[in-house]
Order: sequence, then structure tokens, then C-alpha cells
Amino acid sequence: MLGPQVWASVRQGLSRGLCRNVKGRKVDISGIYPPVTTPFTATAEVDYGKLEENLHKLGTVPFKGFVIQGSTGEFPFLTSHERLEVVSRVRQVIPKDKLLIAGSGCESTQATVEMTVSMAQVGADAVMVVTPCYYRGRMSSAALIHHYTKVADLSPIPVVLYSVPANTGLDLPVDAVVTLSQHPNIVGMKDSGGDVTRIGLIVHKTSKQDFQVLAGSVGFLLASYAVGAVGGVCALANVLGAQVCQLERLCLTGQWEAAQKLQHRLIEPNSAVTRRFGIPGLKKTMDWFGYYGGPCRAPLQELTPAEEEALRLDFSSNGWL
Amino acid sequence: MLGPQVWASVRQGLSRGLCRNVKGRKVDISGIYPPVTTPFTATAEVDYGKLEENLHKLGTVPFKGFVIQGSTGEFPFLTSHERLEVVSRVRQVIPKDKLLIAGSGCESTQATVEMTVSMAQVGADAVMVVTPCYYRGRMSSAALIHHYTKVADLSPIPVVLYSVPANTGLDLPVDAVVTLSQHPNIVGMKDSGGDVTRIGLIVHKTSKQDFQVLAGSVGFLLASYAVGAVGGVCALANVLGAQVCQLERLCLTGQWEAAQKLQHRLIEPNSAVTRRFGIPGLKKTMDWFGYYGGPCRAPLQELTPAEEEALRLDFSSNGWL
Amino acid sequence: MLGPQVWASVRQGLSRGLCRNVKGRKVDISGIYPPVTTPFTATAEVDYGKLEENLHKLGTVPFKGFVIQGSTGEFPFLTSHERLEVVSRVRQVIPKDKLLIAGSGCESTQATVEMTVSMAQVGADAVMVVTPCYYRGRMSSAALIHHYTKVADLSPIPVVLYSVPANTGLDLPVDAVVTLSQHPNIVGMKDSGGDVTRIGLIVHKTSKQDFQVLAGSVGFLLASYAVGAVGGVCALANVLGAQVCQLERLCLTGQWEAAQKLQHRLIEPNSAVTRRFGIPGLKKTMDWFGYYGGPCRAPLQELTPAEEEALRLDFSSNGWL
Amino acid sequence: MLGPQVWASVRQGLSRGLCRNVKGRKVDISGIYPPVTTPFTATAEVDYGKLEENLHKLGTVPFKGFVIQGSTGEFPFLTSHERLEVVSRVRQVIPKDKLLIAGSGCESTQATVEMTVSMAQVGADAVMVVTPCYYRGRMSSAALIHHYTKVADLSPIPVVLYSVPANTGLDLPVDAVVTLSQHPNIVGMKDSGGDVTRIGLIVHKTSKQDFQVLAGSVGFLLASYAVGAVGGVCALANVLGAQVCQLERLCLTGQWEAAQKLQHRLIEPNSAVTRRFGIPGLKKTMDWFGYYGGPCRAPLQELTPAEEEALRLDFSSNGWL
Repeated sequence: MLGPQVWASVRQGLSRGLCRNVKGRKVDISGIYPPVTTPFTATAEVDYGKLEENLHKLGTVPFKGFVIQGSTGEFPFLTSHERLEVVSRVRQVIPKDKLLIAGSGCESTQATVEMTVSMAQVGADAVMVVTPCYYRGRMSSAALIHHYTKVADLSPIPVVLYSVPANTGLDLPVDAVVTLSQHPNIVGMKDSGGDVTRIGLIVHKTSKQDFQVLAGSVGFLLASYAVGAVGGVCALANVLGAQVCQLERLCLTGQWEAAQKLQHRLIEPNSAVTRRFGIPGLKKTMDWFGYYGGPCRAPLQELTPAEEEALRLDFSSNGWL
Repeated sequence: MLGPQVWASVRQGLSRGLCRNVKGRKVDISGIYPPVTTPFTATAEVDYGKLEENLHKLGTVPFKGFVIQGSTGEFPFLTSHERLEVVSRVRQVIPKDKLLIAGSGCESTQATVEMTVSMAQVGADAVMVVTPCYYRGRMSSAALIHHYTKVADLSPIPVVLYSVPANTGLDLPVDAVVTLSQHPNIVGMKDSGGDVTRIGLIVHKTSKQDFQVLAGSVGFLLASYAVGAVGGVCALANVLGAQVCQLERLCLTGQWEAAQKLQHRLIEPNSAVTRRFGIPGLKKTMDWFGYYGGPCRAPLQELTPAEEEALRLDFSSNGWL
Repeated sequence: MLGPQVWASVRQGLSRGLCRNVKGRKVDISGIYPPVTTPFTATAEVDYGKLEENLHKLGTVPFKGFVIQGSTGEFPFLTSHERLEVVSRVRQVIPKDKLLIAGSGCESTQATVEMTVSMAQVGADAVMVVTPCYYRGRMSSAALIHHYTKVADLSPIPVVLYSVPANTGLDLPVDAVVTLSQHPNIVGMKDSGGDVTRIGLIVHKTSKQDFQVLAGSVGFLLASYAVGAVGGVCALANVLGAQVCQLERLCLTGQWEAAQKLQHRLIEPNSAVTRRFGIPGLKKTMDWFGYYGGPCRAPLQELTPAEEEALRLDFSSNGWL
Repeated sequence: MLGPQVWASVRQGLSRGLCRNVKGRKVDISGIYPPVTTPFTATAEVDYGKLEENLHKLGTVPFKGFVIQGSTGEFPFLTSHERLEVVSRVRQVIPKDKLLIAGSGCESTQATVEMTVSMAQVGADAVMVVTPCYYRGRMSSAALIHHYTKVADLSPIPVVLYSVPANTGLDLPVDAVVTLSQHPNIVGMKDSGGDVTRIGLIVHKTSKQDFQVLAGSVGFLLASYAVGAVGGVCALANVLGAQVCQLERLCLTGQWEAAQKLQHRLIEPNSAVTRRFGIPGLKKTMDWFGYYGGPCRAPLQELTPAEEEALRLDFSSNGWL
């Protein structure tokens, strides 16, 4: 949480027009990103050492960058201090040329702005802002446009919209996306809903803007490229990062048949580490693939033995284990 | 409805093993189909003359064939006699080399079998069978596998599965599709749900079968081709048939950039004549494009002037009007 | 299905104003009704003999009448001829002073009108008309008001609205109910959704009309009485009819404590024979309680042994077995 | 947020068995509570003066106590410090004999425990703990039982479960409630889902425990009393508190007819300040009724003039304005 002085200076900065992205250009977010998990010790403390180890291993994969504290990062379980500390550590570990996109969404607009500013201060290159959702019955297009506009106005770094209805029960409406795409500090969107008709429509209706769409899951990555997305933030890339990047290359070079074959083999493993078994499934898989997975914070529970067996089958039956 | 004699002979045929597809081969259903609308007179009678006129116009488009009495055909509003009579008339009008796929789904297995057999008798090349749905709470995979197996066992012509959750509130589960794909008389599936991850998974898990997947809407046609679908049944093809077939050609010849541009321009018009304004929207558009649209049967209502204006905008803003 | 002559006479009748409810008064539908199941033989024919036996046994319970071909009656699996024949047989068996309310809903307005007129001809005292639902995306209040108004205009007997979202995916909107309650031939509503706030609101907003609301399930019968409903159509009354009628008496005589105790013991058995195990569960239970349950028509499947055991527990743990 | 020392002492306390409710008895939570709103100044700071003024006015109503930081309190928009400060101020203002139930739910189990302990320290008599929901796909009964058990084990004051699916997209499963009702430090539940069949079942299946159920809204308060609930936490009680308490009295004294009439008149105003117009609607109404409503924190938006008019009509048409 920002102290009152910082927040006051943020507001002053706004009034002087200084808080806009000083680089004067939009960042190019195209490419593949793993939404990095947050490792915990057996006593549920953040394990910064294991985080660094994981990042070193992930550093060998040709990712565009790293998403820190997407849904996969268990951000709702972290304190504000932990959220910032994690991003700060990541910044120190990863190469300068890798984009660091930090999740800074909170329920209130004010808290989101504060977290956004703080994320910039600890080294994030851009923020990814999830839709507020607790009062989803009142989260009209107008309310969401107001929210994101405030955040983007006050953010020193570019803003990426983030729609993830499986977690929020809310789809950022297309008309709101189109309006927000015109904001000079909003550079794109991560869409995890999996509705490729919607993704195509968003690409179409924002084509006159400098606006980029990332698929929020590898399950529909090929299809998203086909309709105009430029990359993906893919939980599965935490364990099969090279393969996800290979799928990207096949799409970008027009090798659609090979891309299709690879895409097919990634659907079940991806569902297993997202919709079906969630972060506990992903972390278990990380243990298998040489990363540190470890426990989740409660109330997320470990997999049962039956779930673990089903998880393994989703990888082995597709030739990954 | 079949008389008792016909039904008895169907059952005898089954016991003698004669009811399987006598041609001994599976039909190739790849390609584009319009789900033909049923024209009505001002007094809500089926207008067979207008039906023939529409078919003559549609005959100039390089469709693989015609789907008669998909959801777009208002089949739930037709009597059994009308359902068969419409198919019979279509058979007489369209060229022999065009596939006629007739919707034969009813709520009960027995009624579906009877309708399927009758559809074959009046000239259908294949049937498309929607999931029964009134008792959706009990429509488990087991129940649906049982239903489709009975229908396919007894059908003299190939069977296409049909999943359309917007109408039925029910997704035919992937595991049921995989099981059913092994039936020698089940040749494929029309999936109208728009979940391209699911379509890719179905293609992947039925890859060892002779099983073909059609997209149920042009909104996700390009993406469906990208993940392995082989065609589409597209309401919009009733008015923009040439364009939908052009999109097919661009996909099949690997011209993905041009395909993407065309796909983008078809999303809003397609949503307008399906999800947003339904069959009344499609029929109104048909009137604009030189076909006979005419009224729907009640309880479907005509568009309001405001709806009609919004419908027109969805076409004109994409350059189609 | 009516022949053309009958239908023509219906339309003539309408134009002469003769088709309105000739009795000139609204029927009082308050009370408890079992939605009677349709018995089938082992070969899936309607078993009229077993139907009569069941009705004789049900005749000893102080029901207000019988609902024939509600959702529990498997009406979507019956031919038009069977629907009418079943009602005709019931009329001959039950006492004159018991109300016979027949389900006459079809997808199209025209078919619903025809079925309604036919139901009156074979002896129904009133019809219960389920919302059309296949094109639920276009079933606006305006469309539904139009549908029910046409049916009520042309029906020779009173009309009861029927909202059952678990089957139809559609709630008849409150504003449509309020408008329709003003129609002289619409006497009430069966609401199976279980939202007692909604039921209270409907009672409140129709209080100036002669309009009665029936709970569509015994699970919320006490609560419905508390907010102003006047009875119920309760699947569980097919096996625990005396108990459901006892609950009615306790409510009507203000014995709320005893009512609450009885209500509590009926919730799990009721869920078991509706939401949880459906008609197969109810028919299995009928076999236990001395009625004829027998098989359902396909695609409804028999319970598995595990389901049957769970069903039995829901009755035994509440002291009914 | 608790400092590490406090948290360490909490854990030590647990191991010594000292953290259980030292009073050695369960609190009686029966009665009516307003879920108090959090007043903000024009610059979105918490307005503690206005909070006190509101509480003084609410103090004239025969409430059992006050719920602080239920969903109506905008708790997701408050910092941890603000959450505690608000409760602390309320404790100083309200009479000792009024129960102060504080919302202490957070996404992680650990944060919820810390907030719970802190709420006890600042004077709460009990806590109300909303279901964690961001990872709802993994919030199985087992996970939720684990979460609430940990919180109840470590809480120095009694715990009330809180299920509010409109906000969380999650219903606390009945089997989890039944298991948790056996915990000595869990005294009851607030159920805001409005499914009175479920409420009756919970009362029935926890009848051997000392477990009390509160309705989460006045819309189904009468019906909830009818099936065994013992009170309600009702947003509408912030403006029509006397009337909600009158409804309680009518229910408790068996005056069901008068209760029904009053209940009917409260449904639309209640929907208006909850589902339909949310907290902005409630705060606007508070301004009308002599309380301080004021603005919400962003992203919640003020009502539009059309919404405000509709809100007023929902009160005036029922005789409250």
C-alpha cells in the first residue's frame, strides 16, 4: 500500500500531466508469457529462492516476458507488500530485455491505481488489470470504462486489460474494450474467456488503434492467432514453455498443419492445469517437470491421489510424460 | 409420423441387419451448407413456392449441400407431415450432387428413429440429430450415447450429431462424442457452441475415426478450420453464401491473411442473424438480399423498427449493405 | 393434431366470440395436485390399464384434482394422439368433482391452440401451458404475452401459465405474468422455479386480479403458502400424496410449527424425485409405494444401483421408508 | 494486517487451546440486523462522523445488532486498516447490548484468520465470513470446510458462515454447512441466495446442532421464518428498519396474514436496493429517508436519472414514499 505522501505525489503528477507513459510510445506486447506461479514454503511463506530458481529455468525459453500475478500467481492470497516484493525480485532476476507485466488489479479503483503506481516503481514494464468483480451486478460498461480510464490516466506504465470470466464471473464487454482501446496508455488485452468469435471481433473493431490481443490460455492459442491475436499468456508455459513457443513460431511462419497437430496435443494438458485442477494441478506438474511447484496457500487444497492420477494421464496420453 | 406397418418393418429390418447404411461407406460431409429457412405465407402456412425460389437462388452458390430443418428451419414449429413434405420438396428441387442433410431430432428416441427413417424415405442423404433437451438434468453421457446409438443403428442413412447449447441448454459431452464417433453410421458432428478449444479436442480425440466436424456458425468458421473442422453450417450463408464459400476457399488454400480479413467482416452480421435477432433477423435480411424471408411462425415476433435499424447497421458497417 | 375442419371451426368460433370460456366464470384452482406420470409397458407403449390403477389409488387422497402431462408426465415423448388419449382416459376414470388440468403446451402458438382446443374436447377442465423455449433467446415478454394471449383467446377452457426453468431454461418474466393475469381466461400460474421472492411478488402484483399461484414443487410449498400461493402441483404427491395434503391442511389452518416439521421431512425426498433423479427416480419410488412406476421412454434411463440406493436413503432417512 | 508478533501469538494461542471462544457458550444471533453502509466523503475518504450519525438514528430501531462490512459495507474497497477502524468506531457508538457482527472474510485462509482475530480485538462480538471465491472452480466442499474450520479454530469469537452467490458466484454447499455446524465456534449462517428450499433443508439437517440461520435479504424473510430461520440481515433495514422489525414481530407472534401483507410491500423496494441498483441505490434511498447515503467508492457509479426515477417508483408504488 502506498503511503499518503506517494499517493499525494501521484495525484499531483496527474494534475501536471506527468504520469502518462513518459516513454511516449506504446510497448509491443506480442509474444508468449508464462503467468508465473508464486512458490511457497511448507509454512506458506513466499519462497523467493525457489522463485528465482524457477525464473532461471524459465529464462532458457524464448518467452517475450513474464506475467507476474496473473490469476495463476495466487495474487488474491498475497499481501500488498508481498505482491510488490515478488515483482521487485523478479525484476532483479530476469534479463532487461524481457517484459515484466505485473498484475495490479484490486477491487477499488483507488487501490488499483496505487498498486499500479507501486508496480511501476518496483520495475514492472506494464500492468495487467483484472476486472473488479465483487459487485458484478453493477459493473456495467460505463463503470468499467470509468475504472480503466482512471487507472490508465494515472499509470506511469502501459495498461493491459484482463478479462477472465472463470474467476470473475464477468466478461469485459466488447463495447467497453473498443472504447478503452482508444486510450493512449492502454495497449492491449488478455482475454481468457476462450470465445474466439469475440476475440476476432475485438481485433476487428480495434484495428484502427494500436491495440494488441493476447489469448489467455494455450487451449485456443492457434485459433486466436488465426483471428488476429498476437500472443498468449499461458499457464501451461510454466511447464511446456518450449512447446508453447514452438506453437507460436509455427503460427507466425504459416505452418498451420504442424501447428494444428501441436495445438491438439496441448489442449488436455492445458485444461488439466487450468479449469480442471487449477493451480494445485499446475504446481504438481511443475514438480514433475523440474521446476519447484510446492504447495498453494489455503484455501486451495492439494490434489487427491485420484486427481493426481488423472492429471498425469492428461499429460502422458498426449506424449508429454 | 410413421404408420405401425412401417415402424414394424423398421424393427424387422433392424433384426435382419438390413437397416445399416446400405451403401457400405461413409458420406463425406466436408463443405459449407446453409441451414435453409422455412418460408411461410401471411397466414403462416408453409410456402413451398417461395421455398423453391429460394433454393433456385441458393443453387448458384458452391455449397456442398443444404441442411433442412436445423434450428434455423423453425422445425419445432412444423408438424411431422410438414417436416417431411419440406424435405421431399427440397429433394425434388436441388441437384442430385448436392447433399441434403435433414434435421430429424425429436425428444424421444422412438420418435427420432421414426422421423429419421421417414427422412430417408423422402430423400435425405443424411440426418442431423439435435440432442434431446427437455429433461436435460437427466441427459448424461450414458443417456445420450444410448439415444444416438439407437438412432444410428436404425437409420438407413448416415447420422450427424448436433450440439446447439444456445437452444438446448445442453452441450453434447466430449466423451460421448468420442464414443459415438466409433459407430459406423455416425459420420460427424455440427457443433454450434463456439468453443473452439472443445472443437479442437473433438477433432484430436476422434482422429482415428472417420469423423468430421462442422462449425455451426460462420462466427468461428476460420478458427474451426484452423483446429481441424472441415466445413460449416452457417445461417449467414442464406444471405452471404458466396462470401462464406469464399472464406472456405481461403482457408482450404492457406490464404490465412485474406481469410482473417473476410472472417472479421462476417462476425457482426452473423451475430445479428443468430444470437442477437434470431430467425426474424435472418428472414428480414433475406428480404433485403433478394430472397424470400417473410414472417416466422408465432411465438417468434417480427423485429421492432429499432431492432431492424440495428440489424441493418451490423451489415452496412461491415460493407455488406 | 386437429384435422383442418376442426381447426377451421375453431377459427370461426373465435370470430363469433363463442370460444371463450362459456361458463362465464373463472375456475378455482386452489389445492394440491399430483402431476400424474404416464405408465409404459416393457415395450414402451402407454399402459392405460396401469394408468387407471394408479388413478384409483390416488383417488383416495384428498387432492383438488390431477395435472395430466405436466413435465412429470413425459409429455414431450408422447404423440399428439397419445396426449389426448391419456387425458380422455383420465377423464373417464376420475370423479367429476376432481379438476382435470391438462398440459397443452407446444413450441408453436398454433400447435398450442390446437392442442388446447382438443384437450377441452376430450374433457379437460383447464389447460396448463408451458412456456415455449427452443428459441428462448427471442422469447421476450412481448413474445410470451402474445403467445399466451392467443391461446387464452381461443381456449374454450381456462388457462394456467406454467414456468419451469429447470426444463425450459426460461423464467416467465414477472411483468408478463402481471399483464397476462388481466386476461379473463387466464386463471393462474404454476411456478416451478422455487424463487419465493418472485412468487410473493407475483401474488402482490396480481392481487387485484382473480389470479391464483400454485407452487410447482413441494420443496417450497409451505413457504409459498406463507407468501400467498394457494396450492401446489407436486411430483412427490404421486407417492406421498396424503402427506402433501396434510401439509396443505396445516398451512391453511395456521399450524405453522407442525407444518414446518412436516415440510422439513419432505425436502430431500422431493429433491430426489425431481432435480436429482428425475422421473426415473419418481417411478422407481412409485414401485416401492404400491403404485405402478415402470420404465420411462428413452432417452430417459433407469437409475443405476448406486442412484437407487441414494434415492432410498433420501426417503428412509426422513422416516418415509 | 496483523504484525508478525500478533500472528505468532495467535498461533501459540492455538497450540495452547486458548483461542477458542473463552465465554464457553454460543451467542444467540436471532433477530434483525442492518448491514451498515460505509459513508464516504466527496473525496472518497471514510466519513466516520456520518457513520456515527447514521448509527445514532439506527439506534432507535429494535435491531438485535449491526452487521459491519457485509457486502453492503463495500468491504472489498476498504483497506485492512479502514476495516478495523470502522468496526472500532462502531463499537464505541452502539450500546453494549447490541451485537456487533463484523465481516472478516478475505480470499486466503491466513488473511481471514488475521482479520478475524483483529476484529475481535477491536470489539466485534462475532464475525461473518464470506466464502472465498476467486478460485471458485477449486472451492469444493472439502476446501471450504478446511477454510472455515481453520478460521473457527483460531477465532476468539463466534463465527457466522456467509453465502452470497450474487457476489461470489458460489453457494456454500449444504453438506459443508452441515459438517461445519458441528464446530463449537460456528454458530450460524447468513444465506443470501434466496433459495428457501435450501434454507429449510439446512435448518432441518442442522436441527441437532446449536446452529441458527439468518435470511440474507428481506425479500424472503417471511418465507425464511416459515421454514425455520431466526432472523435476517437486510439491506433494506438501513432505511425501513422499523418495518423490517415489525415483519419480524408479526412472524414471531404468528400473525401471518398481516406479515404477508407487509412482506409483499417490501419485495420491490428491497430488490431495488440490492439486485437492481445495488449499494448506489441503497445510499440514494438513505438520503431520502434522513440518513447519510453519499457516494460509493469507484468503480461503483452513481445512479443515472432514469435509474433514480425507477428506484423512487419502487418505493412510492408500495406506499413508502
